[in-house]
Amino acid sequence: MPDSSLSGGDSVLVWIVLVISLAALAFAYYLVRAVLAADQGTVKMREIAQAVQEGAAAYLRRQFRTLGVFAVIVFVLLLVLPVADGGWETRVGRAIFFLIGALFSASVGFIGMTLATRGNVRVAAAANAGGYQPSFRIAYRTGGVVGMITIGLGLSGAALALLLFDETAPIVLEGFGFGGALLAMFMRVGGGIFTKAADVGADLVGKVEAGIPEDDPRNAATIADNVGDNVGDCAGMAADLFESYAVTLVAALILGQVFFGPVGMVFPLLVAAIGIIASVVGVLATRPGKTDSSGMAPINRGFFTSAAVSLVLVAAASFTYLPSISDGADLAVSPQVLGFVSVFIGVVLAATIQQLTGYFTETSRKPVKDIGRSSLTGPATVILSGISLGLESAVYAALLIGGAVYGAFLVGGGAALYAVALAGCGLLTTAGVIVAMDTFGPVSDNAQGIAEMSGDIDEEGARVLTDLDAVGNTTKAITKGIAIATAVLAATALFGSYNAQIGVALDEAGDTLGDAFSLVNPNNVVGAVLGAAVVFFFSGLAISAVSRAAGRVVFEVREQFRTKPGIMNYTERPDYSAVVDICTKDSLRELATPGLLAVLAPVAVGFGLGFGPLAAYLVGAIAAGTLMAVFLSNSGGAWDNAKKMVEDGAYGGKGSEAHAATVIGDTVGDPFKDTAGPAINPLIKVMNLVALIIAPAVVGLSVGEDANTTLRVLIALGAVLVIVISVVVSKRRSVVVGGAPTATADGSTLTATAP
Amino acid sequence: MPDSSLSGGDSVLVWIVLVISLAALAFAYYLVRAVLAADQGTVKMREIAQAVQEGAAAYLRRQFRTLGVFAVIVFVLLLVLPVADGGWETRVGRAIFFLIGALFSASVGFIGMTLATRGNVRVAAAANAGGYQPSFRIAYRTGGVVGMITIGLGLSGAALALLLFDETAPIVLEGFGFGGALLAMFMRVGGGIFTKAADVGADLVGKVEAGIPEDDPRNAATIADNVGDNVGDCAGMAADLFESYAVTLVAALILGQVFFGPVGMVFPLLVAAIGIIASVVGVLATRPGKTDSSGMAPINRGFFTSAAVSLVLVAAASFTYLPSISDGADLAVSPQVLGFVSVFIGVVLAATIQQLTGYFTETSRKPVKDIGRSSLTGPATVILSGISLGLESAVYAALLIGGAVYGAFLVGGGAALYAVALAGCGLLTTAGVIVAMDTFGPVSDNAQGIAEMSGDIDEEGARVLTDLDAVGNTTKAITKGIAIATAVLAATALFGSYNAQIGVALDEAGDTLGDAFSLVNPNNVVGAVLGAAVVFFFSGLAISAVSRAAGRVVFEVREQFRTKPGIMNYTERPDYSAVVDICTKDSLRELATPGLLAVLAPVAVGFGLGFGPLAAYLVGAIAAGTLMAVFLSNSGGAWDNAKKMVEDGAYGGKGSEAHAATVIGDTVGDPFKDTAGPAINPLIKVMNLVALIIAPAVVGLSVGEDANTTLRVLIALGAVLVIVISVVVSKRRSVVVGGAPTATADGSTLTATAP
Repeated sequence: MPDSSLSGGDSVLVWIVLVISLAALAFAYYLVRAVLAADQGTVKMREIAQAVQEGAAAYLRRQFRTLGVFAVIVFVLLLVLPVADGGWETRVGRAIFFLIGALFSASVGFIGMTLATRGNVRVAAAANAGGYQPSFRIAYRTGGVVGMITIGLGLSGAALALLLFDETAPIVLEGFGFGGALLAMFMRVGGGIFTKAADVGADLVGKVEAGIPEDDPRNAATIADNVGDNVGDCAGMAADLFESYAVTLVAALILGQVFFGPVGMVFPLLVAAIGIIASVVGVLATRPGKTDSSGMAPINRGFFTSAAVSLVLVAAASFTYLPSISDGADLAVSPQVLGFVSVFIGVVLAATIQQLTGYFTETSRKPVKDIGRSSLTGPATVILSGISLGLESAVYAALLIGGAVYGAFLVGGGAALYAVALAGCGLLTTAGVIVAMDTFGPVSDNAQGIAEMSGDIDEEGARVLTDLDAVGNTTKAITKGIAIATAVLAATALFGSYNAQIGVALDEAGDTLGDAFSLVNPNNVVGAVLGAAVVFFFSGLAISAVSRAAGRVVFEVREQFRTKPGIMNYTERPDYSAVVDICTKDSLRELATPGLLAVLAPVAVGFGLGFGPLAAYLVGAIAAGTLMAVFLSNSGGAWDNAKKMVEDGAYGGKGSEAHAATVIGDTVGDPFKDTAGPAINPLIKVMNLVALIIAPAVVGLSVGEDANTTLRVLIALGAVLVIVISVVVSKRRSVVVGGAPTATADGSTLTATAP
Repeated sequence: MPDSSLSGGDSVLVWIVLVISLAALAFAYYLVRAVLAADQGTVKMREIAQAVQEGAAAYLRRQFRTLGVFAVIVFVLLLVLPVADGGWETRVGRAIFFLIGALFSASVGFIGMTLATRGNVRVAAAANAGGYQPSFRIAYRTGGVVGMITIGLGLSGAALALLLFDETAPIVLEGFGFGGALLAMFMRVGGGIFTKAADVGADLVGKVEAGIPEDDPRNAATIADNVGDNVGDCAGMAADLFESYAVTLVAALILGQVFFGPVGMVFPLLVAAIGIIASVVGVLATRPGKTDSSGMAPINRGFFTSAAVSLVLVAAASFTYLPSISDGADLAVSPQVLGFVSVFIGVVLAATIQQLTGYFTETSRKPVKDIGRSSLTGPATVILSGISLGLESAVYAALLIGGAVYGAFLVGGGAALYAVALAGCGLLTTAGVIVAMDTFGPVSDNAQGIAEMSGDIDEEGARVLTDLDAVGNTTKAITKGIAIATAVLAATALFGSYNAQIGVALDEAGDTLGDAFSLVNPNNVVGAVLGAAVVFFFSGLAISAVSRAAGRVVFEVREQFRTKPGIMNYTERPDYSAVVDICTKDSLRELATPGLLAVLAPVAVGFGLGFGPLAAYLVGAIAAGTLMAVFLSNSGGAWDNAKKMVEDGAYGGKGSEAHAATVIGDTVGDPFKDTAGPAINPLIKVMNLVALIIAPAVVGLSVGEDANTTLRVLIALGAVLVIVISVVVSKRRSVVVGGAPTATADGSTLTATAP
């Protein structure tokens, strides 16, 4: 390993990076002011927005309270667990940076959501008053704030750790990344369950049973549905992208140190700082023009401007900052070329994934049209064509991502893993713009909901909002694709860090690796199967959690229709907060099982089967996770847009049998694309980071003088036991909930007979 | 490697094994005579059975003609490809045994199907004349014949190769296994597309549009549906189980030689011969008793009797034949214990998988009941609950299979892979009974179809046939679970052979393995992602092939209703053969793409990325494939039985909204459980065998003096090109077919408007 302390010049550079990251926060503040200055619309709109704001804030407060306890437990565990390299200061630093990472992740989610619930009503108001351009601008700038906060906090945390801890910063940053990823996973899962329980529940009773349109104020689940958009798509996604950003940086710093010493740590920070500049330019460049063919045009313009700025500045940074000859790793090209080309690969990957996802989920392209056409033969063919589309599209995405990793591998030579991590950084130089376009989605969606519910919208305004919503659907699908790509790159890189940790720990225990990491060990094959299994299990749990929670929403809404007969003719007001409450409680309860699974399964495999199978487990999880995530997201996105296509008049339009078939497809797709699919991204990283953190302990108990098989097996059994109990408890719940409609749905058309 | 020639005593033992395998064929002949002696029913029944027989035979003949060309190409390639060890005789032997394996696989499928299409009508006739016991016996004995032929041919091939080629037999047997697996995969995919295209097409037009019941003679697709049961569930499954049996034996012989020399090769043959004896006992023990609670009772009795006989005899064989001390591999236990415990693990795995699959797919258990209940909230919740059930159940199956591999790993010590292969043999000692219970499914299903179509059945007879059909559904699900378990064990073991081949080839090229097989190589992560991707792609292709072919069936049946208005009041006869013809042509055309993918993707990865990524590719495919196969099979099975549960009167019974919801679930499940899911089993093995066969060539072109990067890259690009062309061509087809109903379905209720 090259000399590992920061030089004076490097310190200055890191200080500059820190200043730039704070500037991002200042720019966010400037954007906030602009958004909040806009008109808040009619009294009715404000009332509805208020209800959404309160519901969303109440949910997040309760979620943070629950997660706070969990965070404290993990904090204590981190203080206890050994680190491979470094003393107690490193250990304490890692634990504290875990808390900081968690806090930042939560803050990004909280601020993003708070602002989104304020932006939405202003977008609705602007659609009425000023038309397309101002409402687009407000929606996008709201997203821009979240983007700036995401990258500002992510980069400042990394820079701070490097300034404070110098050569032990990578280990400290494991904590930072872990805190961010863990919180993000919980927010993703919890928010995802909330939003889809409300959405599916609202659709099942509203559209299907009562025959009232979406977002109709008579449906008691509508406010919950809008709250869900914010806690799931907005808070969850923002936290998720924050952790992608943080974890990728962390992986790059860890590997940069291994291969190039301090220079290797500073370079990724420079790339990220350049990303901030590029994102500011990109956000400012995103303004709808008179000649734009669709709402995607200005968004793409912003993205590509940002990407171009990044590339030019990264080229400059690579060829001035990086050395032209390597004195450490055995490279195929010079460090300068390695740095630039790796980042370039990442930028190109972001652009191609954007195109690919667009192809598979846009209404105007063949795949969605094919699904739309299959609605002529009923719901079964809609489901089948959506599933085969999703399965196939996952493969193309996997090929792109695999191609990027392989490209980085070829360029990287002896420092292949660092090149992979830099490609991840490249993917995220446009993170500010990506988060902005993602947040654009729920803000527009909510604006439409608020306008619809208030009734205070003219025809032109309604058209504007529908257009914005359609654009938002596409941007949401795109950011999901990019998020999973970052997960694979970050996980592959982290995986290298895991290897390094194991090497160091074995060295200390006076042992060597042998064939523990060999693919042909049968116990490694078992590890890989288990890794893939966890992805399947997690997806199944998330989907069934939504079904269960949606069942309760259905029951509550039906009950309100029954006990408040005035709802249907607008003489009685439904109790919106009751549904918000159900979603809040259920989603917090339901996130426990998948969350525990993610944290404890690697513990069980690592301590139970060993560090070799744990490595294979991670590979299995990365492989199956990549495909499953894209499959779920793209099937769901395509069904959603096939429905929109029929609603726009194809195959008989609204009310036709074809429409009914696509509504079923859309409902199936909801938990696919907004709960299970996107949560796989933080899942993969949480599992990788858990593996990284327990690696020294696993090795310590396996070999050398502290080896203790009994303790190892006990820890593994304990982890398995907690998972089993949690699964059993959640299955128990399904009995109660599944039974409820049967017993009391006497008012509805569906009366049950026990089998 | 221990001394590798067969001793005189061992030769005698192998001759005895050969005689036992021929005795299995003799016993099959005895059973055939008994089945064919039974009454063939009324004239109408015979007529219908005749039509099914002709359709099925015509399909298989055409399939074999197509596959014959393919087999010859592969034969020539095998003559060209180098072998790691051994001269031209080995190479020629391998190529010839490839043809023998393919021929045996095809014969098992052909004979099984021919007999099933003769047994079905006799079962229907017996239900009328004699009631439950005789019709059960005929159905099961028909299955028994197929079981005996499967294991008789499988074992005789292996014994013959060992007698003829002695120490080079393992390499020759690669060809035998490959031939069997390749044919089986094509028969599985082709038959699976045929059967589900006909089934889904018949349901969509018949049940959904025209409102006529299943198996109604007015539906032009009914004969095709019955033909499909035979070419898919019967011929396809028989060939599939044959290849499972053959490949598992091959893997055990290869690894047995590596670890224990001739003794290691002879022992698996002894286990298989014992399996034949146990299967004969099991088949004879399977007779319904007066006190049986359900049709599953005698079947389970037969299975467990067979398993018990196996265990006792295997214990005797282990402790008399195997040495008590190892002189080669470094073992944790004596070879005797290793042999017995490994086989024991396999037998236990078969039994537990049977229980687990039963739990997730039987009508009387909670999971299916939960799906049934979800039908109250419509098709979307039926689909969601089935998918989450499938995802979760896959994990339990993966845990069982993983546990078995790990158990064998622990017992095996230095010969872990051999222990895994022996566990596979253990799993298949009951193969005769397993094939019998599997074939029982389509025979009963067909018997019911024939009785229904002929109208010549009394109420009691109809009840008998419904009962048999329900039992058949469960046995089919169980055998699918066992088949995928054999795939994982065989693939893990083959994977060890791959490793050995690479080692030998590197040695010859004067190179060493280095970290090429290390999990932490980024290019190996790419390989694993690609392996998982192929499983997803293959599944997606199979499902969309069914959708496309079903679309054509729908079009044809609608067209017949339109042009022959007399069909609905029975004055005109539908043209059944037209639909059979469509299914035949389409399934043969559609199997090309998934088939080429399976064969060429490992070629592309191996030559393109190298032998390390190819190993990772196999691990990724095994991990994702196991889970995907069980997910698809169990979701499909559970939906099927949820529908049956509603049809039996739950939640409103036939004609209710709940019933409509479960019919949609069943239709979605059809290609899951009968096309994509079961085809993953041979897919995994074909890919492993292709890797094994190309291993020496890949190494030869990569390292040493014959290294030739250009040629390597050209081969990889060629393989990729063929896959791409094949995919593009099959996508083109979807335009034509998807468009057809729109243009001409003017007689139906679903009229399309172009978007």
